[in-house]
Amino acid sequence: MIETPTLVDQYCHGVLRTELGLGTFEAHLGRTAGPPAPGTTFFDTQTGFAVRRWCPPLLGLEPHCPPARYLARRRELGVLESGRRLLRASGISTYLVDTGMPGDLTGPDEIAAAGDARAHEIVRLELLAEQVADTSGTVDALLANLAEAVHGAAATAVAFISVAGVRQGFAAPEPPGPGEVRGAAGRWLASRRVGDRLTDPVLLRHLLWIAVSTGRPLQLQVGVEDPMPLGDFAAATAGLGTDLVLLHGYPYHRQAAHLASVFPHVYADLGPVLAQTGARAAAVLAETLEPAPFGKLLFSSGAHGLPELHVVAAAVFRSALGRVLGDWVGDGAWSLTDAQRVATMIASGTARRIYGLG
Amino acid sequence: MIETPTLVDQYCHGVLRTELGLGTFEAHLGRTAGPPAPGTTFFDTQTGFAVRRWCPPLLGLEPHCPPARYLARRRELGVLESGRRLLRASGISTYLVDTGMPGDLTGPDEIAAAGDARAHEIVRLELLAEQVADTSGTVDALLANLAEAVHGAAATAVAFISVAGVRQGFAAPEPPGPGEVRGAAGRWLASRRVGDRLTDPVLLRHLLWIAVSTGRPLQLQVGVEDPMPLGDFAAATAGLGTDLVLLHGYPYHRQAAHLASVFPHVYADLGPVLAQTGARAAAVLAETLEPAPFGKLLFSSGAHGLPELHVVAAAVFRSALGRVLGDWVGDGAWSLTDAQRVATMIASGTARRIYGLG
Amino acid sequence: MIETPTLVDQYCHGVLRTELGLGTFEAHLGRTAGPPAPGTTFFDTQTGFAVRRWCPPLLGLEPHCPPARYLARRRELGVLESGRRLLRASGISTYLVDTGMPGDLTGPDEIAAAGDARAHEIVRLELLAEQVADTSGTVDALLANLAEAVHGAAATAVAFISVAGVRQGFAAPEPPGPGEVRGAAGRWLASRRVGDRLTDPVLLRHLLWIAVSTGRPLQLQVGVEDPMPLGDFAAATAGLGTDLVLLHGYPYHRQAAHLASVFPHVYADLGPVLAQTGARAAAVLAETLEPAPFGKLLFSSGAHGLPELHVVAAAVFRSALGRVLGDWVGDGAWSLTDAQRVATMIASGTARRIYGLG
Repeated sequence: MIETPTLVDQYCHGVLRTELGLGTFEAHLGRTAGPPAPGTTFFDTQTGFAVRRWCPPLLGLEPHCPPARYLARRRELGVLESGRRLLRASGISTYLVDTGMPGDLTGPDEIAAAGDARAHEIVRLELLAEQVADTSGTVDALLANLAEAVHGAAATAVAFISVAGVRQGFAAPEPPGPGEVRGAAGRWLASRRVGDRLTDPVLLRHLLWIAVSTGRPLQLQVGVEDPMPLGDFAAATAGLGTDLVLLHGYPYHRQAAHLASVFPHVYADLGPVLAQTGARAAAVLAETLEPAPFGKLLFSSGAHGLPELHVVAAAVFRSALGRVLGDWVGDGAWSLTDAQRVATMIASGTARRIYGLG
Repeated sequence: MIETPTLVDQYCHGVLRTELGLGTFEAHLGRTAGPPAPGTTFFDTQTGFAVRRWCPPLLGLEPHCPPARYLARRRELGVLESGRRLLRASGISTYLVDTGMPGDLTGPDEIAAAGDARAHEIVRLELLAEQVADTSGTVDALLANLAEAVHGAAATAVAFISVAGVRQGFAAPEPPGPGEVRGAAGRWLASRRVGDRLTDPVLLRHLLWIAVSTGRPLQLQVGVEDPMPLGDFAAATAGLGTDLVLLHGYPYHRQAAHLASVFPHVYADLGPVLAQTGARAAAVLAETLEPAPFGKLLFSSGAHGLPELHVVAAAVFRSALGRVLGDWVGDGAWSLTDAQRVATMIASGTARRIYGLG
Repeated sequence: MIETPTLVDQYCHGVLRTELGLGTFEAHLGRTAGPPAPGTTFFDTQTGFAVRRWCPPLLGLEPHCPPARYLARRRELGVLESGRRLLRASGISTYLVDTGMPGDLTGPDEIAAAGDARAHEIVRLELLAEQVADTSGTVDALLANLAEAVHGAAATAVAFISVAGVRQGFAAPEPPGPGEVRGAAGRWLASRRVGDRLTDPVLLRHLLWIAVSTGRPLQLQVGVEDPMPLGDFAAATAGLGTDLVLLHGYPYHRQAAHLASVFPHVYADLGPVLAQTGARAAAVLAETLEPAPFGKLLFSSGAHGLPELHVVAAAVFRSALGRVLGDWVGDGAWSLTDAQRVATMIASGTARRIYGLG
């Protein structure tokens, strides 16, 4: 048996602090803001089935019990106690938490306490820039504060994440020139109202490049797009000493893994895909293991809002990794020693190395 | 065992009325209009092997018998009797038939009678528009007749299909303006000869939007292209009450399934892919089941010309679904109850719901 | 058991003539020119693990022994003797060798002698053009010499390969006009220095079309790009009597196989993908076998520099083919006779046919 005694969840969010009804819980299983199609439910998804497989036993119920029964038991225990039981059963010993999502979510310290684990903060570049803009009156102040804020955050943050800059990185790999940046900053200051999101492509690219200059790993949320055009940004940042970590990527996960094979400083994340594909996770994991050097892949949960999603990601990952590598060892394609070594790399070792964790 | 006692074939064509020689039969197994490469045959494809696996026993022969022997037996029985035997063994109880393909093909009533099943018509938008143009002399008449024809068809058709509009939908998701439409209609009337195909992008988009306004489900033939750009059209039609059903999609079937996960009114078809991939159908089906909510997938055969293709699609689908879901139940990933429920949805339930079948 | 008694390696390179240290050996397992990421090694890849699985036993060691031990044994035997042992155990009886890669590599005759096999030359169009340019002083001379060189090479070469022209073929499928070609030739002659690579898109397309006119099969290195846009070039060359062979293609191998299903003169190569995906080769092979007619797929190793890569490609291919087809026979999806026939086609038969090998 391949063992993964401990996991570093290299990208996740906090969990909701309030008790949840069936509808709110269900909403976190879907991929859209809106309700499911009439006559359907988000419980009828791989994620929904995976939650029903792995979580009820952790709260003392049968696997695959009906959602309403599970939610009743969850409320009976209370949101805090059920969260503690779930997270402590996940096998995750370190959480890297993107604190930039809106909503009443637990922060790194709370998730660490609930899960009896460690936690570190990932700083979301776009949110940081918006906060800086809220308090900067001039272009000079904005640009100076932006640089200071990013470099300041680098002192404590374990990594940066950009969720919007990726598409801009696709379009133009090089840093924008100073004049371009000043112009964009001026237009943004003149037109924005407090709370507005940053969408200007020049400023997003500028932000990416400030982050690159700090040397902290930069996570790029690829989303559901072919990441191959990111190759130009990867080429432009090669040799600068900053690692890029591609998040998500399904159904282009082979392409993301390919980029990790071509650029020494590019890594690929595989967690959320696994949680979302549930019973198919072993197959998807196996595809990711085709092109990528094994030291370039990282587990994460990508979980948001429900501790069930952290649990499911971890359980699905362990189960899938054990099955895939176990089969290869059984076939004689891999040695058991190598398989165990690779499992440890992906589960925690590579994350410890590139994020400088203890 | 997972059972699918009855199937709704949500997209197919009629079958040829004439006796077939080996060459004509073979031509229907390929994906091109022309002959196979020298030294090769379309029987040496997954579709060809699947036909040889599933169909000979229905006509009293051994599986995998040589094509010439199968064709001889088919002629011995006659095209009518062999068609009846094949269709009645398919397990398909309802056929939704696109009547817009050229050729001497059976219509919905004939296929229903041959297969001891029900059948409904899917109306092809492009053909309808061409027929309208043949009898409309002015722009005003063309546009009025077009709207009337589509709304009239909606009274009896179970759905609309667009085979050419999809690419235009990719390019510009919004409905074209009235001036644009009039200009395009005028140019088309001035230049076309009777029988000419509709290829004007503005008129194709106009047609899509008239169809959307009827509320009948709109099938979009994605073909062999990445359907992700269709997201813009899906976003533009969200909340209007009309369902979109993406047809085909291989090798971008995960992307089609992803769109079905993101938009409540988008559904994905999985039949023809399974028939075309034969021994690999379980793997392709499993990929489609990764991102899509299970209530957003629909069986179809996509069969055209040969009743063997309806049979193979149905047999391959049942076999693949039984294997994939059965494995997941065996692993404990799904409960048997859930698996049976999902199988029924995909086989017939979702089609009954969105097309309003009895 | 499915047997592949002999293989035609329809695309490979020679092997290095010098003794190799661990670092040089490792460099040939990666996909980039540079070193692996800090803390990682190219041995921790599917290719690395496959080499460690298949090659040590051929030199008298245990499978999966440490790389340093394998390299020590390799040096003990000497580069010649280890190369002979490896190549003769590969089961490859004919090598088609692209002689256009730089480096101290064995040519077709040497690899044939070392491997106790036959070998034929594949001529690289870009290199041929660069050699012609080195000795042509005028536009007229360049164009005349180019045509003569390509047609001359066609008399002895088994095929042509273009590694750079593919992207240009994507952009504009038709041959460039004579004026365009003369202009491009003039600019190239005026600006180039001896040894400069050919990158001009017009001249690259011109070269492709001269090669097409010879009737020799034309191999196109697709690389890591979606080959679907090549459909336009395929359409433009259909019916001219020249076969196109798409090389590589992963992770777009289903798309490459699809093109082989649509165009009678298009074939798809599957070797290097298999060697690179190692333990996953059966899955990748199975994907390629979905859309492609079975007579349109060809084995190759794509090996370069290390005879281990020829061995691994052949071993992985045999093992994957045997497993995939064997499973289908076991399921009753294919007959054993058909499976054996298809295996022979892919392993050698189709290559013998389209390259006119004895």
